[in-house]
Amino acid sequence: MALADWGGARGHMLLDPTVVNLNTGSAGPLPRITFERVTDLRTRLAHAPMNFLLREVPPLLWRARERLAGFLGGDPHRLVLTTNVTEAVNLVASSLTPAAPGEILLTDHEYTPMRWCWERMARRQGLSIRTFRVPTLPADPGEIIDAAVGAMGPRTRLLSFSHVLSTNGLVLPARELCEQARRRGIVTVIDGAHAPAFIDLNLAEIPCDFYAGSGHKWLLAPTGVGFLHIGPGQQDSLEPAQVSWAYEPPRGSGPPDERDRFGSTPRLRRLECEGTRDLCPWLAVPESIDFQARLGHQRIRARRRELTDHARRRLTDWQGLEPATPESPALSGGMVAFHLPATTRADALRTGLWERFRIETAVADRPEGPLLRISANFYTTEAEIEHLADALKELLAG
Amino acid sequence: MALADWGGARGHMLLDPTVVNLNTGSAGPLPRITFERVTDLRTRLAHAPMNFLLREVPPLLWRARERLAGFLGGDPHRLVLTTNVTEAVNLVASSLTPAAPGEILLTDHEYTPMRWCWERMARRQGLSIRTFRVPTLPADPGEIIDAAVGAMGPRTRLLSFSHVLSTNGLVLPARELCEQARRRGIVTVIDGAHAPAFIDLNLAEIPCDFYAGSGHKWLLAPTGVGFLHIGPGQQDSLEPAQVSWAYEPPRGSGPPDERDRFGSTPRLRRLECEGTRDLCPWLAVPESIDFQARLGHQRIRARRRELTDHARRRLTDWQGLEPATPESPALSGGMVAFHLPATTRADALRTGLWERFRIETAVADRPEGPLLRISANFYTTEAEIEHLADALKELLAG
Repeated sequence: MALADWGGARGHMLLDPTVVNLNTGSAGPLPRITFERVTDLRTRLAHAPMNFLLREVPPLLWRARERLAGFLGGDPHRLVLTTNVTEAVNLVASSLTPAAPGEILLTDHEYTPMRWCWERMARRQGLSIRTFRVPTLPADPGEIIDAAVGAMGPRTRLLSFSHVLSTNGLVLPARELCEQARRRGIVTVIDGAHAPAFIDLNLAEIPCDFYAGSGHKWLLAPTGVGFLHIGPGQQDSLEPAQVSWAYEPPRGSGPPDERDRFGSTPRLRRLECEGTRDLCPWLAVPESIDFQARLGHQRIRARRRELTDHARRRLTDWQGLEPATPESPALSGGMVAFHLPATTRADALRTGLWERFRIETAVADRPEGPLLRISANFYTTEAEIEHLADALKELLAG
Repeated sequence: MALADWGGARGHMLLDPTVVNLNTGSAGPLPRITFERVTDLRTRLAHAPMNFLLREVPPLLWRARERLAGFLGGDPHRLVLTTNVTEAVNLVASSLTPAAPGEILLTDHEYTPMRWCWERMARRQGLSIRTFRVPTLPADPGEIIDAAVGAMGPRTRLLSFSHVLSTNGLVLPARELCEQARRRGIVTVIDGAHAPAFIDLNLAEIPCDFYAGSGHKWLLAPTGVGFLHIGPGQQDSLEPAQVSWAYEPPRGSGPPDERDRFGSTPRLRRLECEGTRDLCPWLAVPESIDFQARLGHQRIRARRRELTDHARRRLTDWQGLEPATPESPALSGGMVAFHLPATTRADALRTGLWERFRIETAVADRPEGPLLRISANFYTTEAEIEHLADALKELLAG
């Protein structure tokens, strides 16, 4: 594959030519090679379902698990595949039974449904929720660590935070936060929805108890890919959300952590099996990893930086919008957010961008005011950012 | 579409020509038109994911819900879409809180994972499990009703039974069983994994509390289609397995049972939403319903009967195997099971049929001895049944 330039790379993506996609942070389009792979697998599933599920899937499933674990710096024997990060976080929240009374500690920028998920757990288990304010424009990661440590107390049982904030793309210092929590006996659950292929993720360096992620964003994997990586000592803490045929190991099963003939281990399969379902998205993950590896992950990140820098100049210097994301490469990546005028109605702006300009990007109402979030990926062009800037000029003036 | 004969109908199916598929009861192959539809939807998802999920899915989702509800004789406002029957039954078992102590009543032919599912519920809630023996070769449905009623007692809180037994294809008298249970204040949960498009299902005539089904078997829908139909008065009994963005209704939401702008109702969406996932299998259900409707559901059932009759003659009269499924059309459909010699090892026979003859069929170890289960559908040929008979002759002699 010759990828002489980013225009060439864009040509390898399935991208609706009529849509300006500045929202990889919600869901990424697919590389053509990934789509072809997952469609080929689904063709085989459709033609001879039982042969595919019983005989073809197992080696492909283990291969996918190994490749994804390798890419994340994790252990394939501790990698539960899920549909998405929501399922992964729910699995943890439905399983753990921290000592009550006590507190679950969250940042004030968690994805709302995940906050609800922890609130349900708290209600069920007689715990309370405590939220701390993340400095969203810190000068350095130390400010974030100080804020988190200041909120940890003797009643804190569990800390959950987003590795990359969905609101503004701020990257949190996951390693240090987990070290501080561990020192205090606090269980850590990282919502890494945006992290895989967004930052240079290495789970081996993050001493967390549970790390959850999604594949349909920056990894450019098919919709239906997520994971939960189980940290040391937590392997017995989880109870499957669903009882399926893998709930009890079949006769002649090996040890719980040994690769089995289903492409899993008995322990993982018990957690991830949910009856007959389409596993093909999981099996096509290697294609997405390889595709981006050929482009070069470092090069992609550098290109995203060029594009977010361009967006900053265009929207801040020329348009007067105030950035809501720090510039430092230690604190941000391919997403940059901007404060919008306080009178902006998020829904109306999102609709206007779509209906009048075919621009897909994230606009959210936040307690601190409306935020516009731009996701820039290697297939984004400067012209698309110009198009957004022109559209905003018109819509915000109106 | 001209479908002059069953050979022509077979030509409209994706079928691996090297495989003899006698196992629609585990998973059906796909009509070409369904596969093309689901692939087209997935192409749109891959090209412009947010536009597809936010704007294209809602009307398609409601259309699929209405068509499936209509096909089942149910109510679209009470139809939760799921991945499969396992998810649907788990949703009920994780939600209900019957008065303890008390009993959950099951037949002795429930699908093992579903038995485990009820056992987990029983452990969690201080209930016990009671199993009753289903007469598997009854002269009439009354025998089954008598066995069930004889097992119901004042401590029985919940009855769960398979509408069609997965072991031998016996069709249970669902309406009468539910009437008897209701009279005694017993909640009913029907595992209809095999029922849709296998029997002439009409949920309006079955007074059950919950009806769960799968689409990837006789309905010939893509892998990833299942449902839970909620009976009258049970709409407030369920709690979502996962907390997702639909857990709390957004501002400006309408009444819980009114169609919303997401292709659901607030109540259904809360139960079925699990974050970003591939909904395309649900959306392609109408194509599978229409495909079989064009062939004629009555004609398909009559053709299956010809084929199971042929299998009976061939395996019983010529080969001496004893049938394990009653012949009466009121008690069976496209699946017929046979007792195998007591010394038969199910695993070895299944492997032999596959490896030496490329025959895919179900062979199971059961307390009453090994059972062979043949699924015959309109794309099955008499020659395939002959091929199975010849293969069995060789393998059982060896």
